[in-house]
Amino acid sequence: MVKLDFDKTNGLIPAIAQDADTGEVLMLAYMNQASFNETLASGKATYFSRSRQSLWKKGETSGHVQHVKEIRVDCDHDTILLKVEQVGGAACHKGYKSCFFKTIENNEFKIVEKRVFDPKEVYK
Amino acid sequence: MVKLDFDKTNGLIPAIAQDADTGEVLMLAYMNQASFNETLASGKATYFSRSRQSLWKKGETSGHVQHVKEIRVDCDHDTILLKVEQVGGAACHKGYKSCFFKTIENNEFKIVEKRVFDPKEVYK
Repeated sequence: MVKLDFDKTNGLIPAIAQDADTGEVLMLAYMNQASFNETLASGKATYFSRSRQSLWKKGETSGHVQHVKEIRVDCDHDTILLKVEQVGGAACHKGYKSCFFKTIENNEFKIVEKRVFDPKEVYK
Repeated sequence: MVKLDFDKTNGLIPAIAQDADTGEVLMLAYMNQASFNETLASGKATYFSRSRQSLWKKGETSGHVQHVKEIRVDCDHDTILLKVEQVGGAACHKGYKSCFFKTIENNEFKIVEKRVFDPKEVYK
């Protein structure tokens, strides 16, 4: 029975979602024990929304579900790495494949990716 | 001038280090404003150690410095993704290339990577 260290950070630990095929880092969200259990049971990434303070089944609104291919944990058991298949090709609610679509160059943000979908069309 | 959202989580936000060449996720640590500034200024990953409550220049003891090739931030400006060149070939203090050397399978941890160095030889 695996036990992760949810206690260190008030019940929530970071979970990184990485594209299982390309290795691209798609997003980072948080999990509590219940969302981790739900992820294990369903095979779909389920996070805990800090803003809504509730379980967040990724893709429930947008259809952009994440099928979990592999679950890794770090040496301290306080970070999760999910290797996922991202349905719809985009993890970010702003319409990009990855939430990490901006670089920092010369102390400025710069968008370096292209939008995959228009958020206004997906979140109606 | 870039401004990240350090306030949401008491001054510390997660920073993912990813191998710039292979895309492998190496580790996750935390940064405060000072460590972020130091990372930008030095070009070497500098975190904030939650256990020691001080700036943590990655590799200062082991020599396993991370040269930062690219800095990305997520859509909410509350997570950092560093693309790095990992000196010494290993990010994890337990001697593995990546801290994510364990999978979860059938509700058990399973080590799926090989050690690159012996921690007892590096941290004397």
